Amino acid sequence: MSATVPASELKWHVEELARAAKAASRTLATLSSEHKNQVLEAIAQALEKNAKPILAANGDDVLDAKGLVESGELSQALLKRLKLDEAKLADMVRSVRAVAQLADPSGRILDRTLLDEGLELQKVSCPLGVLAVIFEARPDAVTQISALALKSGNAVILKGGREVERTTEVLVDVMREALASNGIPQNAICAVYGREAVSALLKLEEMIDLVIPRGSNALVQHVQRNTRIPVLGHADGVCHVYVDAAADEAMALKLVVDSKVQYPAVCNALETVLINQSIATSFLPKLLERLGEKNVRVRGCARSQAIAPEIESVNGKWHMEYSDLIAAVRIVDNIDGAIDHINCYGSHHTDAIITNDTAAAKRFLDEVDSANVFHNASTRFSDGYRYGFGSEVGISTSKLHARGPVGLEGLVTYKYKLYGTGQTVEEYASRRRKFLHESD
Amino acid sequence: MSATVPASELKWHVEELARAAKAASRTLATLSSEHKNQVLEAIAQALEKNAKPILAANGDDVLDAKGLVESGELSQALLKRLKLDEAKLADMVRSVRAVAQLADPSGRILDRTLLDEGLELQKVSCPLGVLAVIFEARPDAVTQISALALKSGNAVILKGGREVERTTEVLVDVMREALASNGIPQNAICAVYGREAVSALLKLEEMIDLVIPRGSNALVQHVQRNTRIPVLGHADGVCHVYVDAAADEAMALKLVVDSKVQYPAVCNALETVLINQSIATSFLPKLLERLGEKNVRVRGCARSQAIAPEIESVNGKWHMEYSDLIAAVRIVDNIDGAIDHINCYGSHHTDAIITNDTAAAKRFLDEVDSANVFHNASTRFSDGYRYGFGSEVGISTSKLHARGPVGLEGLVTYKYKLYGTGQTVEEYASRRRKFLHESD
Repeated sequence: MSATVPASELKWHVEELARAAKAASRTLATLSSEHKNQVLEAIAQALEKNAKPILAANGDDVLDAKGLVESGELSQALLKRLKLDEAKLADMVRSVRAVAQLADPSGRILDRTLLDEGLELQKVSCPLGVLAVIFEARPDAVTQISALALKSGNAVILKGGREVERTTEVLVDVMREALASNGIPQNAICAVYGREAVSALLKLEEMIDLVIPRGSNALVQHVQRNTRIPVLGHADGVCHVYVDAAADEAMALKLVVDSKVQYPAVCNALETVLINQSIATSFLPKLLERLGEKNVRVRGCARSQAIAPEIESVNGKWHMEYSDLIAAVRIVDNIDGAIDHINCYGSHHTDAIITNDTAAAKRFLDEVDSANVFHNASTRFSDGYRYGFGSEVGISTSKLHARGPVGLEGLVTYKYKLYGTGQTVEEYASRRRKFLHESD
Repeated sequence: MSATVPASELKWHVEELARAAKAASRTLATLSSEHKNQVLEAIAQALEKNAKPILAANGDDVLDAKGLVESGELSQALLKRLKLDEAKLADMVRSVRAVAQLADPSGRILDRTLLDEGLELQKVSCPLGVLAVIFEARPDAVTQISALALKSGNAVILKGGREVERTTEVLVDVMREALASNGIPQNAICAVYGREAVSALLKLEEMIDLVIPRGSNALVQHVQRNTRIPVLGHADGVCHVYVDAAADEAMALKLVVDSKVQYPAVCNALETVLINQSIATSFLPKLLERLGEKNVRVRGCARSQAIAPEIESVNGKWHMEYSDLIAAVRIVDNIDGAIDHINCYGSHHTDAIITNDTAAAKRFLDEVDSANVFHNASTRFSDGYRYGFGSEVGISTSKLHARGPVGLEGLVTYKYKLYGTGQTVEEYASRRRKFLHESD
């Protein structure tokens, strides 16, 4: 389990580990919610009891990271994120206990049909099996992901950034001991180390059911391009606000500013404002003033430059995610032009229309092909916490399985359980018996 | 749209067509159920009215196919399947009308949360967008798939077997005319022709949302291995019946026979019987007798050969799908051995346990990692019709999106629609307002 596995054995090692995680997942699928919650509490207590070795290992990671900051290989922000103290550790423990409070997504009867007397079909939610989670230098991710995996009945293989390797190792060891002393196979929580381990993991489509990359766009894209395992995540967040002809001007100004400025570095922040041509001459100068007050630089199309020559040209880069105080502006002929632009250049994440025309709003919400489509609200609302999910596993721009902000239910699938009393299909094919198909 | 596009232009042609289908899908997403049902009725009537040209085109296909049968390139069974007559055409029309009777899977409000006064979040089912369906020589698939796509609000690109090219072309033309005269973009139903078109289609991950291969294992595997577009389907059906120590012997004999013999060529037919060692000496000879009566040949493990030396060796080929009157038999130590075998060699399709021990049944149903897990019932029950779905789009052994027999709901996804009245995230971040998060 340590970072010292020789490279030549690594593939074998990762495969063995994945096989062990798969075996552990069989047991996890049978656990009651009570049992899983007990284990989560045991993990919380073990983390509290082992604060000292955890903080010591983190201290070693921080020491090395400081060197990397000095040599310019690591940002100050990253260093801050990877550094633990007692308060942060207490937060991590609180988060584990909060997961115990969430409803169990697994074992729910989603549908029940009486096919015939003594022949009942149940569609039941169940764990996916084995998750692989690849994240960057965040110690809190280690415990939070493990808790979510356990709660949903999945085994998890963690691959953290190399800057938190020692912290990860101690955290994982502490959690594995808590598992073992509560009758759960230790391999329900595994960790792998080193960049090569990622390549090895991404090849194990027979053993891993879902990969969740948590980190930079580059990481997510790398994972998406290099595996046949389903990936839960999103690379870009190119979000739009369309200011319709029938928009309330004051509301539009307020919502564009909030969408862009409230937290520009995140995926649900706005990148491009689309403005209906009929209001552009009056609206654009006001918008530029408001964005200017917030130090937002604006790039635009030729038509917007004709109204406000101070706007830089966007040079056709409508695909860009700035993640910064920069916004693009485009004047469109009508709502069709807006929808076309969004479906063509957007990332299918979050897009909003500002209008008092409900028919236009309906068209926008139906025709924009994005996970989150908003009427008269800031794009920044697309988030598991704001949606009331209690926890967020990630945001998905894939259309299959889970879309938009994904809570615990994104970690389960379903299976059909058929409870019979000896029925053959021949009895029905020969019409000696007929199906009832009675649903609740 | 004809089969005469030169190969050099084909990629461009398929891409253009997919783009047109995508554009059409925008309109489809806004249609009411009533409108979609009207169009389905119009399609049904158009097919009736055009029986003559449809049967004429099919006659040409049949003529060529007969030549292929004579030269041994096509089987008699396939010829029979591709041949239309008035009765078969009437069945196809009936199927289109039956789809109009199904509930609309799109536009359902799956969840509704009041985030705050005047800020309502709805999780709403919606079409996937564009489907690509690749099938073999079945004219009935053309109209059935088109009807299911339309009902669920998806555009569809059809690629049929070359043996039904002329039939497909006329059917698609008739349906497209019915679309156009009912205010729906014709490109909601498209067709491409020729083997090269498949390769071109499979590359269009930006435009196609789901591929559904319908046909041989080889076709499904080819599609799965050659695209990054999500695939709905299954390649193999290696299904098991485990006869537990606590099985009712008569029931076990009956269910193994039904699972193997009732229709051996289909994916939910049994391939391997697993027998608990404690009952093997008494059960195996009876099973061999019953299977022998039905002309089933048996291959087995060394332990089964020790009991019944007439059994051929399976030679370790536990992965084999025979699709024929051949069954494999293995004696296992206990339920763990059975579950291990199934999770290792099975295709995660359908597996059954025969037992009167409910604790053993619970373990089997929880721990076997298959889409359909049965207690005391034939594996042959896993089927959309028997499950009461009204229609079956396919059977999926993937865990994500849709699993098991898939009805119309496998052709939709969901999006989050947020209806606001000008709310910014800043108001909540600054704690001037608090979320309500009231669910129905």
